[in-house]
Amino acid sequence: MEIFLATGNEDKRREIQDLFPGLTFLLPRDRGLPWDVKETGTSFFENALLKAAALSAGLGPGRPVLADDSGLCVDLLAGGPGVESARFGSVPGAKPLSAEDRNALLLQTLEQRERESPETGRGARFVCALVLFLSPYRIYSVQEAVEGEILKAPRGSGGFGYDPLFFLPSLGKTMAELSREEKNRRSHRGLAGAKMNLLLRSLG
Amino acid sequence: MEIFLATGNEDKRREIQDLFPGLTFLLPRDRGLPWDVKETGTSFFENALLKAAALSAGLGPGRPVLADDSGLCVDLLAGGPGVESARFGSVPGAKPLSAEDRNALLLQTLEQRERESPETGRGARFVCALVLFLSPYRIYSVQEAVEGEILKAPRGSGGFGYDPLFFLPSLGKTMAELSREEKNRRSHRGLAGAKMNLLLRSLG
Repeated sequence: MEIFLATGNEDKRREIQDLFPGLTFLLPRDRGLPWDVKETGTSFFENALLKAAALSAGLGPGRPVLADDSGLCVDLLAGGPGVESARFGSVPGAKPLSAEDRNALLLQTLEQRERESPETGRGARFVCALVLFLSPYRIYSVQEAVEGEILKAPRGSGGFGYDPLFFLPSLGKTMAELSREEKNRRSHRGLAGAKMNLLLRSLG
Repeated sequence: MEIFLATGNEDKRREIQDLFPGLTFLLPRDRGLPWDVKETGTSFFENALLKAAALSAGLGPGRPVLADDSGLCVDLLAGGPGVESARFGSVPGAKPLSAEDRNALLLQTLEQRERESPETGRGARFVCALVLFLSPYRIYSVQEAVEGEILKAPRGSGGFGYDPLFFLPSLGKTMAELSREEKNRRSHRGLAGAKMNLLLRSLG
């Protein structure tokens, strides 16, 4: 089964491909389509849905589209950076911060918030919304989350983004210390992918 | 497994119970909670999500909530009445029309529209969105649809609402001419329920 992925990002194609062996993922550019959808939603689901709907409209009927939107929700930031995770600390229109700079900014911000509200704790969750858009009337979605804590300094060299700061108490490791296989099984995206796989396998 | 159903309607509990044998469905009133959530969303999914989120907030964590929102989308009405299906032709605040009066109004409206735009045809679809709300971060949803045509006069005495007007060409019957078992298998709600069942059975 061929599925179009609503992203311009090759890295995301590789990650998603890992979660759905046996399926072939195509990017908009594989059909010569431009990709510059603005992620203006206020929730992961909304953003995933608007990306999926935009690509589906570009491709026309009969082409299943998968979209992913994910991010980090931190208690000390009242659920932020959330849908702004990739753009945290960045000036609108300018180049986004590097992952290292973004992580340093997050640690600094949390340190200050923790002084103001020490009872909140450093709880956080990674959230992933996957939307499978079969037609404007046939849409499946799965949003999963993993609970963890934001460390005071990065640990581990795997993964990307906020992974080195996100500690999973149940595994005693940060997301950046998981093997690729372990991450595919235990991460927010891995959990959402497993549920979406159930739905995909049920399609005729 | 006990699941709370985000509705005040006993008939909906019975229908949903049919689709999910083995699960126990509770209504808000079974826990003494009032039920008067306004369905202000612009899509079936949005309405189902806001009902599920409202009940989950009332119940507190650890209580799975299922919500349903469904309706009829008619080509000659540019996809309407859609989320307004239950209130079609009704005056806001007043008692909604009876199903018979609503169906008569739909036929009359389509007759007029058909004269204005004869090339559109009488195509329509029944759409059902189901949302399973496990927590604010763990949400599954399925939206399914069945394609059909709006007849020029009602046929059949089963079902309810728009069922006697909705003809399924693949079955050669209206939705109101299906047996209960056939409807559970072939209707928009039946199709969405089957997918949601896959997800429910995968929960630990």
